[in-house]
Amino acid sequence: MTRTIAILGTGLIGASLGLAVGTADPDTAPLGRCHVVGYDADRSQLRTARGRLALDSEARSAAEAVKDADIVVIATPVQAVPELMEEIAPHLRYGAVVTDMCSTKAVVMDWARVRLPTSVSFVGGHPMAGKERGGAEHAEIDLFKGAIYCLCPAVNARPEAVDMVSALVETIGGKPYFIDPDEHDAYVAAVSHLPFVLSIALTSTVTRSPAWKEMQLLAASGFRDISRLAAGDPTMHRDICLTNPTSIAHWINETIRTLVDIRTAISEDQGANSQENDAALLALFQHAKTARDQWLLAPSGQRPGEGQQMSHEELAPPSVTSMLMGNPANFIKNRRKKDKDD
Amino acid sequence: MTRTIAILGTGLIGASLGLAVGTADPDTAPLGRCHVVGYDADRSQLRTARGRLALDSEARSAAEAVKDADIVVIATPVQAVPELMEEIAPHLRYGAVVTDMCSTKAVVMDWARVRLPTSVSFVGGHPMAGKERGGAEHAEIDLFKGAIYCLCPAVNARPEAVDMVSALVETIGGKPYFIDPDEHDAYVAAVSHLPFVLSIALTSTVTRSPAWKEMQLLAASGFRDISRLAAGDPTMHRDICLTNPTSIAHWINETIRTLVDIRTAISEDQGANSQENDAALLALFQHAKTARDQWLLAPSGQRPGEGQQMSHEELAPPSVTSMLMGNPANFIKNRRKKDKDD
Repeated sequence: MTRTIAILGTGLIGASLGLAVGTADPDTAPLGRCHVVGYDADRSQLRTARGRLALDSEARSAAEAVKDADIVVIATPVQAVPELMEEIAPHLRYGAVVTDMCSTKAVVMDWARVRLPTSVSFVGGHPMAGKERGGAEHAEIDLFKGAIYCLCPAVNARPEAVDMVSALVETIGGKPYFIDPDEHDAYVAAVSHLPFVLSIALTSTVTRSPAWKEMQLLAASGFRDISRLAAGDPTMHRDICLTNPTSIAHWINETIRTLVDIRTAISEDQGANSQENDAALLALFQHAKTARDQWLLAPSGQRPGEGQQMSHEELAPPSVTSMLMGNPANFIKNRRKKDKDD
Repeated sequence: MTRTIAILGTGLIGASLGLAVGTADPDTAPLGRCHVVGYDADRSQLRTARGRLALDSEARSAAEAVKDADIVVIATPVQAVPELMEEIAPHLRYGAVVTDMCSTKAVVMDWARVRLPTSVSFVGGHPMAGKERGGAEHAEIDLFKGAIYCLCPAVNARPEAVDMVSALVETIGGKPYFIDPDEHDAYVAAVSHLPFVLSIALTSTVTRSPAWKEMQLLAASGFRDISRLAAGDPTMHRDICLTNPTSIAHWINETIRTLVDIRTAISEDQGANSQENDAALLALFQHAKTARDQWLLAPSGQRPGEGQQMSHEELAPPSVTSMLMGNPANFIKNRRKKDKDD
């Protein structure tokens, strides 16, 4: 049996997904044999993705792409999602599975609840992978290999649908990680959105200086690395900020607090509390180093892109899952609770 | 003729210098044949550097290391420099050249003026290269290859001394770049120190959160890259902050200003000025991307580690230099002025 996957939005993420699905061995891949149809409002992106063999066929509209699809993957910028959902809603097959690949989840889950018919199952998704260059021309087969792939099933998503999206994630080499949408948004604001905000803040602050023309000669690997994320797609970053404002604003405030602590320790070091400030600064720097080192050295299963691997039992066929747990959302909650208790 | 180079401090930077000098072809290297003697207060660092063939011989003290040296390279943490200068001052050969590799220059130039005898020439140095792992065990032959290497000759440094340090820099693959010490400190505060401060601020802020244990599973390449510099040596970072406090505090303030702009645009986007804030945010993100892209794509000679290459004429033998220009400090100022006028 061949499954049809519709990819809506064939930029970096969508085209990388298509490449990974297309090159998976149909005999061993969890999802089996697939036919990938793609659509992108930007015809050049669609052509590039097709030219790179990320797609088996092109559709002339989102509606045409989804009409025969078993799985619909929304891989557009997050701001395009609500309109796209409305556009495809009347054309989705009964029982189809819809997922997305956007960086924020709560708002997408809300949109899906309101805009998609109850005859389909929505499972929000977010691969913890990417790179700063967008577009199908930068797509990579291995972009998701070993990456944590967050999944947020809607409360009414059928177990089979959840399993199918899990199988898709595994087919492209990702590691399914079930998480509550609000929790997801709060966490990624810290570990994914705050990094790009700081990268942009550095780049913006330094390059707007009148001395930048001369300073840039001295900019080396440190500046290069910390400014890397600022080279990402500005529209994507803006959209992420606008769909996760509360959490991001919180983390910006926390960072400003830390920066003020550092500045105070530096500026006042010449004064009366010299040794105290000196020690405080060193302690802060040492803590950061230790935490960063520990994160990088964390045992397999807690490393970036190597989070908790689900066992075969946990990815059991729907019949077993539903018999034991009923709604997969509960199943997931129970499983996560169990993990925490361990 | 064999030149003796004493390296004081054989950690990452000192040992990398020793490796690069030791592997240079004596027939073609600008500095010719060299004998490298090393000293480090930490005996294990000294042993490691020697074991890695970064040194030809080990000294039992800084005084012993410098007594026959033509060139003395101070490659210790900046805070250790004043005491070390006092220690070696009585033992330096008449006419010896002393240089350092510290990240801040104004304070080091002051120390050298006060603490070193007038019979030696001091040329402050700072290679725009490094990595987050310290210690001789992480030393690399190619660490300085292609890197801009800032040089700040003391006003009384002899032209021959300046040329000798330039030759040393070229021998290890660096590109000599003459700059005023205060200018240097202001610039590196922005492009080198601010990046590590922000990297530490990110890491500290996020890892101190009670949710870090769970958040870290979602931390991927974005967090990895932006937190990279936080893994650097805390003592080195603290020392840099304490020897360049004014410039670093200035750039922290500027960054906080930018972060407040971003936060305001994000938080207030839901309100009345929605579109305005939306546009402001996008404009800021776009400007940062453009500036970063331009920096990375700058023509050879303005790229990181590929700054202005000095021509053979500019690196002419001392006789010519001094005939034309007199004091090399003036020569340098003239050259830089000319570059700006171009």
